[in-house]
Amino acid sequence: MGRRVSMPAAATVLDAARQAGLGLLSVCGGAGLCDSCRIRVIRGDVSPVSPHERDTLAAGDLAAGYRLACQAKTLGDTVVDVPAESVGTEQRLQIESDLPALEWPDGEDSLDASVRAIDVEVPAPNLADLRSDVTRLRDACRAQTDRPVGAMPAAVLADLPRALRDQQWKARLALGGDRLVAVLSPNAALLGLAVDIGTTKIAVYLVDLQSGRTIASEGVLNPQVTYGEDVISRIAYADRTAGGAGTLHAVLVRALNDSAARLCATAGVSVRAIVDAVLVGNTVMHHLACGLPVAGLGRAPYVSVVSEALTLPARDVGLDIAPGAQVYLPPNLAGYVGADHVAALGAVGLPAPGRTRAVIDIGTNTEISILAADRIVSCSCASGPAFEGAHIGCGMRATAGAIERVRVIGGAVRCQTIGGTPPVGMCGSGVLDAVAALAAHGALDRHGAFRRDHPLIDSRGKDAVLVLASADASGQNHEIVLTRHDVTEIQLAKAAIRTGVDLLLAHAGLCAAALDEVVVAGAFGSYIDLASARLIRMLPDLPADRFRQVGNAAGAGARQMLVSASRRRAAERLAARVEYIDLTSDSRFTEVFAGALGF
Amino acid sequence: MGRRVSMPAAATVLDAARQAGLGLLSVCGGAGLCDSCRIRVIRGDVSPVSPHERDTLAAGDLAAGYRLACQAKTLGDTVVDVPAESVGTEQRLQIESDLPALEWPDGEDSLDASVRAIDVEVPAPNLADLRSDVTRLRDACRAQTDRPVGAMPAAVLADLPRALRDQQWKARLALGGDRLVAVLSPNAALLGLAVDIGTTKIAVYLVDLQSGRTIASEGVLNPQVTYGEDVISRIAYADRTAGGAGTLHAVLVRALNDSAARLCATAGVSVRAIVDAVLVGNTVMHHLACGLPVAGLGRAPYVSVVSEALTLPARDVGLDIAPGAQVYLPPNLAGYVGADHVAALGAVGLPAPGRTRAVIDIGTNTEISILAADRIVSCSCASGPAFEGAHIGCGMRATAGAIERVRVIGGAVRCQTIGGTPPVGMCGSGVLDAVAALAAHGALDRHGAFRRDHPLIDSRGKDAVLVLASADASGQNHEIVLTRHDVTEIQLAKAAIRTGVDLLLAHAGLCAAALDEVVVAGAFGSYIDLASARLIRMLPDLPADRFRQVGNAAGAGARQMLVSASRRRAAERLAARVEYIDLTSDSRFTEVFAGALGF
Repeated sequence: MGRRVSMPAAATVLDAARQAGLGLLSVCGGAGLCDSCRIRVIRGDVSPVSPHERDTLAAGDLAAGYRLACQAKTLGDTVVDVPAESVGTEQRLQIESDLPALEWPDGEDSLDASVRAIDVEVPAPNLADLRSDVTRLRDACRAQTDRPVGAMPAAVLADLPRALRDQQWKARLALGGDRLVAVLSPNAALLGLAVDIGTTKIAVYLVDLQSGRTIASEGVLNPQVTYGEDVISRIAYADRTAGGAGTLHAVLVRALNDSAARLCATAGVSVRAIVDAVLVGNTVMHHLACGLPVAGLGRAPYVSVVSEALTLPARDVGLDIAPGAQVYLPPNLAGYVGADHVAALGAVGLPAPGRTRAVIDIGTNTEISILAADRIVSCSCASGPAFEGAHIGCGMRATAGAIERVRVIGGAVRCQTIGGTPPVGMCGSGVLDAVAALAAHGALDRHGAFRRDHPLIDSRGKDAVLVLASADASGQNHEIVLTRHDVTEIQLAKAAIRTGVDLLLAHAGLCAAALDEVVVAGAFGSYIDLASARLIRMLPDLPADRFRQVGNAAGAGARQMLVSASRRRAAERLAARVEYIDLTSDSRFTEVFAGALGF
Repeated sequence: MGRRVSMPAAATVLDAARQAGLGLLSVCGGAGLCDSCRIRVIRGDVSPVSPHERDTLAAGDLAAGYRLACQAKTLGDTVVDVPAESVGTEQRLQIESDLPALEWPDGEDSLDASVRAIDVEVPAPNLADLRSDVTRLRDACRAQTDRPVGAMPAAVLADLPRALRDQQWKARLALGGDRLVAVLSPNAALLGLAVDIGTTKIAVYLVDLQSGRTIASEGVLNPQVTYGEDVISRIAYADRTAGGAGTLHAVLVRALNDSAARLCATAGVSVRAIVDAVLVGNTVMHHLACGLPVAGLGRAPYVSVVSEALTLPARDVGLDIAPGAQVYLPPNLAGYVGADHVAALGAVGLPAPGRTRAVIDIGTNTEISILAADRIVSCSCASGPAFEGAHIGCGMRATAGAIERVRVIGGAVRCQTIGGTPPVGMCGSGVLDAVAALAAHGALDRHGAFRRDHPLIDSRGKDAVLVLASADASGQNHEIVLTRHDVTEIQLAKAAIRTGVDLLLAHAGLCAAALDEVVVAGAFGSYIDLASARLIRMLPDLPADRFRQVGNAAGAGARQMLVSASRRRAAERLAARVEYIDLTSDSRFTEVFAGALGF
């Protein structure tokens, strides 16, 4: 993460992290009684493993360098890796992705952006020189640069006379190939917009195309949630309501325009300096953003209108950016494996030769790919919105007050909330932790039913619950509890994901142990405790160091494609290689799914 | 004109014309007392020249075969040419242009249209074939035709799923190059829209792209007239009123869409089958149609935003035709010589080697070109709206009841109205005739003042007028008169045109007599009596057979470019050769103009 801090000798890594302003999780408060502050020592001199760490961490993890940050004391210069799962949500919202951005040192341009700048000085007209504005601009480019200008969209022409005259006939031209995208003021920065449209959340990044630097970013709620929580209900709304598709398109585009305007205001730049854009999203979001019909995605055999990469005029999409800008959308793989997964695969990259990697992008819909030898197999599974906190009695989105970590310490349930405020409800990672804690402590039978006589379970007549916070302790004056129903939601979700992983492995002719790396991506996937996920068998039981949480990989991929045309071509080549597996038409599906439900 | 009719021996040509349903003018009612029914005998056996004809027609014209239709009797098979000036307005509205259309016999396609059809049959998706609609369409084209499909605009994709499914997976694709313009039903005709946007009138043609045939057409008023009569006042409105340019664009585009919808309804076709369009107009109309600013056209040095040919998405222009259609606009030559003149020059074509031709496109603004040897020189002159009937006391547009021909027969003023109804006012050609009649009969001094003692002049105290119709005779219960003010309007207009012709000749180093052909084009230009125009010195005094009235040449050119890509390239080459002459910066302008005002 690049943070450095000087500490007195024998300070703990947790102290150092706090000093560095890095919000490490610490459910037990630094007492060594839980594993929420797990870190990994890469090199340096640290104190020996404590008895608490021997109790809490598996022998293999210890051997791989995993430690508890509250126990390991730095005795000299030390380099420590902080897994995403050990960092609090607030902190992670700033980190966004652990994948490397494509950046160039100041002054050293990317030569690979799709839209690039040329500077020209145009002679003013007079009675002896009656050339049109366009002709004089073309002539000046030919004379002063080695890049003749080709097509000029009418919307750019409409602004040309004003720009040339306001700027005393000097201009920085943004060219996409030889196409005139915008006429900017001299020395203006060329900006790009990368957008990852999730079913629930939208991530928007404002990027400097010349340096590759992200100059502002934000996450906003997808306003389409008002019209349906998941893609199926969105399709139904688009298809069965008069003007429904238009409404879904309009509210989405308005949210994107509002966000772009906010980011530009923050950065002190004009939205008209945004000369390129990349949009990624699942196939339904992709189609709704482009104004394409989604009816085919709601009916067997679930075919999309278009799967190839698209480059569309931003005006046609409805984006209020530079009038001649285009929007690039990477290819979709199938009806339920979208351009966002292609972007994520592109950002993660191909595994080293001979190595096998799974990429699991967890969300309301979960996409999984296995990259092995010469094959890439991909599938999609309906994991549902439980991980977003929906359909859970006390569920909520991952915002301040949401319980994000749950541990049983000394027989008592301990919780950590986002922002450290009194608990308001549980977000997905908290629910997952709670279910895992019950399973780990023998409070669930193998079907997921509560053992009513277990000390963690509060039996109330015919109901039984796990109490996470009493009405007194909560910030809402009501109890926060986990019910049998909530466990069922998590069971369905984790079974869906595990079934996807196992059937993909079968299609690739591999066993789980053959996976050298498991990359867990996506908003939710980055916040979960991987140990909990393995414990409830959502993920295969592999050594901890084979897992990697990379945050919003789709957003990272979108940003890479924004600043690099060769990344676009690479994503297209990758997409062409993918074998899509339709899980529901696999005869083993029901059996594998049933097996994956239990604990 | 292609009309044939069988007549008894010794019938007059006028009788034959009436029998053929052709509305030849006849101010004197066939008495041989005026020259309004002039025709030219090409070959055949006709009666000898009558004394009336010797009185009325010039010796040179008689030698060239000109006769009066009411006097010449057919004695055998006879071929007669009917000059446009001898045909009534109603008849001419149907003729529109005497220039040849580009048409192909049924079943024999133009191979040169910019948008062409291919027919494909696409396999339906099933569980074993999950390709997207686009991919299956591309694959089908590759397998079934030799024309792979390239870019597909989002608006076309939006309609693709419905079209394929409604049409049982059969489609006729409209391709512009390799760009998908529309997905039509099998066997649908591919249509095009050609539009000539005049300052006052708009001509709209619906054309079958495969046969070249015009299947419907109409003329509509340019709704922008509400915001200013001429281009100068339109520029002022666009520039000085908030939202003015947007309003002018919107009302124009609405008129075009309404007209296209009407023509399609008449022809029983869908507007979505219009897969290509050509728009021509003067530079101000061109810019307003494209949504380009016109401020630069209202201020010296009068430069346009763009002069090169444009190909724009129809959606960007606002045209509701096939969603993927593009609009072609030929190049403008200068701020006041627009794409309409380029279209007219293209339709008229280049003169035969060694011959010199003037093309005069008369309208509110008049464009003139002289094509001689290796040079083409062009200019523009502000002839004003008098020829449209504006600024004339009893002026009106050329509709039913407008006096369109005036003759003095036996000392009395005789008029012919459009449609033969009682006179309501005078249209441009009537005013021109009236002024010419006064000049011919010595009722005007050389400055254009009425000779108050002349028998044609009605002196009323300080006023003096020419009475064309008494209150009793008119259809409006008021007199129709020509005033000194009206004469002045015509003087200014005719002097502007003649100055343009003379200065262009000087620039080309020619005298008027060197002109082998004078082509008079444009709505008004086609309806005037050329003899009157020569008499008042609006046009050079050359033999009648050097003049040719061709109707709406710009509209004919637009239709040619609609069905022929090579005509577009030819117009672009021609435009590149034109030398534009700015008359107002010519030192001789004032002197020549002053000289051209008199009679």
